[in-house]
Amino acid sequence: MKPHNFSAGPGILPAEVLKQASEACINFDNMNLSLLEISHRSKNYEKVMEEARSIIKELFEVGDEYEVIYLGGGASTQFAMVPYNLLSENGSAAYVNTGVWASKAIKEAKIIGNTKVIASSEDKKFSYIPKGYEIPTDADYLHITSNNTIYGTQIKQFPKTNIPLVCDMSSDIFSRKVNAKDFSLIYAGAQKNMGPAGATMVMVKKDVLGKTGRKMLSMMDYQVHIKGDSMYNTPPVFPIYVTLLTLQWLKKNGGIAWIEKVNQQKADLLYNEIDRNSLFFGTVVKEDRSNMNVCFLTNKPELEPEFDKIWKDANISSIRGHRDVGGYRASLYNALPLESVQVLVDTMKEFEKKFA
Amino acid sequence: MKPHNFSAGPGILPAEVLKQASEACINFDNMNLSLLEISHRSKNYEKVMEEARSIIKELFEVGDEYEVIYLGGGASTQFAMVPYNLLSENGSAAYVNTGVWASKAIKEAKIIGNTKVIASSEDKKFSYIPKGYEIPTDADYLHITSNNTIYGTQIKQFPKTNIPLVCDMSSDIFSRKVNAKDFSLIYAGAQKNMGPAGATMVMVKKDVLGKTGRKMLSMMDYQVHIKGDSMYNTPPVFPIYVTLLTLQWLKKNGGIAWIEKVNQQKADLLYNEIDRNSLFFGTVVKEDRSNMNVCFLTNKPELEPEFDKIWKDANISSIRGHRDVGGYRASLYNALPLESVQVLVDTMKEFEKKFA
Repeated sequence: MKPHNFSAGPGILPAEVLKQASEACINFDNMNLSLLEISHRSKNYEKVMEEARSIIKELFEVGDEYEVIYLGGGASTQFAMVPYNLLSENGSAAYVNTGVWASKAIKEAKIIGNTKVIASSEDKKFSYIPKGYEIPTDADYLHITSNNTIYGTQIKQFPKTNIPLVCDMSSDIFSRKVNAKDFSLIYAGAQKNMGPAGATMVMVKKDVLGKTGRKMLSMMDYQVHIKGDSMYNTPPVFPIYVTLLTLQWLKKNGGIAWIEKVNQQKADLLYNEIDRNSLFFGTVVKEDRSNMNVCFLTNKPELEPEFDKIWKDANISSIRGHRDVGGYRASLYNALPLESVQVLVDTMKEFEKKFA
Repeated sequence: MKPHNFSAGPGILPAEVLKQASEACINFDNMNLSLLEISHRSKNYEKVMEEARSIIKELFEVGDEYEVIYLGGGASTQFAMVPYNLLSENGSAAYVNTGVWASKAIKEAKIIGNTKVIASSEDKKFSYIPKGYEIPTDADYLHITSNNTIYGTQIKQFPKTNIPLVCDMSSDIFSRKVNAKDFSLIYAGAQKNMGPAGATMVMVKKDVLGKTGRKMLSMMDYQVHIKGDSMYNTPPVFPIYVTLLTLQWLKKNGGIAWIEKVNQQKADLLYNEIDRNSLFFGTVVKEDRSNMNVCFLTNKPELEPEFDKIWKDANISSIRGHRDVGGYRASLYNALPLESVQVLVDTMKEFEKKFA
């Protein structure tokens, strides 16, 4: 029996995607060769790369003013590449600090150039999303993190600004409708809603590039990867293919409009139970609650071992909270079925019945 | 029928590795979850990372003075990371230019600091390995490329030097015995002898690190990855797992001593035919011929379509040469069986019989 997989990332993927991925390890595209042992320059693989990049633009509803590239190195590499490509020698960058990942992005930007943290929720353990802050009009860009995996907060209304808006969407990409045209750069590690670990997606508006005056290392230069159609060097072939399968699955089932509805249902079901159940409470300001990562605690921590027993018996996997928050975190990524959330809710009810 | 796969990279992998990889996409380590959807921090995956790093040290016969890390981004990222970590602000680096990949490494090093090309075979289209060059005793390191995939040359005797020796072994790692202790840093993209695309191995002697005085970006800093046990950020989980399977396959079958013998047999079989056959000739100085990538031309280029028909009919795949060299290139990576080379040799004999 497959466990109900609430892993915070790498996270659950659709069963049909896993099946196709498994088959491609043996026989890819009827070549009688494994996808793991063919040239990335083969026509069969070039199709994969093209289609993946094309679906991303389709889902984001953007045109040729944007380019999509696939890279290795994870979102952590983007923490450095964003300022390396956008922060000019005499310019400045503005950052909003909403958690561990935003803090890491800020750390890298500071190594590269003048970096200002214009808002932060660190004062309350990142349990809310800062709002109403002033955005400097002369900064090279504003960097935000749309969803904070560890703390369970999510930006519901993106800031309005005339400077380029850059967003780390690693943990909620393609989970809801966003106006992608409001952003100059969106990046995401694949391993939550888009696929497995090992591939990172960057979508960038071409007009923000090439302005820093910096002499750039090839692998750190977005323009090099754009020119090379994400094949400047050998790309992470298999992880990218699995993102294609995942994107195809999303598109086939109804795209963003469909998944946004499903994700809202899942989040409502779980948050309603947290608010109703006398033994649990949420850790985050209600209006900023993430639909992807639901963090909650029990008000009888001495009973955690009892609750742990109940959900483990229900074949639930990976809902222990991050060490910085404790308690529980249920990640409701795109591929998680509503049924799994119902099973979790049932265990919470059972726990209440036994111990309240 | 599976083709005889002579792909230059990503290259052929052992059938049993592909089968295990395929299975892990559905059910990894009896977890009833796919390897693609579990946390890299799970105990099940931590074992993978530990064992892979440990087998690498075992195969290289080195001790605790070395660290092995896995990274994303390919060897091309190492072209920048090597000078970023080893080339001090006032120091210099020495490079030997033996082809396209060495040239790319040199290009990146020049962006970072004072870089000298102390020997090159560019004068004869990289058809030989430079020898007898003087190595500056005051350089921070000497960078060489052990095997040149595109031109089909291979260093048979590594230079002796007292300065740190750095080697890109992407295309012949674990194909033959080397004295790893003579090197301060060895790196390799996995996608030839070690596994699929998407993972890069770096083995570094700790005493060469931390000396540049450079303020470093986290993802570019070897020491950050060493400290994080290759888990500073989410690693390319699946590609690394497939390298473990490939390393286990190598070890189980007899390790380096075994594969070196097999690889020599394969190379001898093909080079002997090239030298014997009146319609073919090799492109490389004999003493520098690569045992991994065998480049050859026909002296009747007008008959290439005829030869192409013969080898395609024999179910041979991917022996067209790189566009810089033309003709043919047969890559004889570790997982390629001797039988496949025999099939290729038979087609060459058939071609000669019909057209000589």
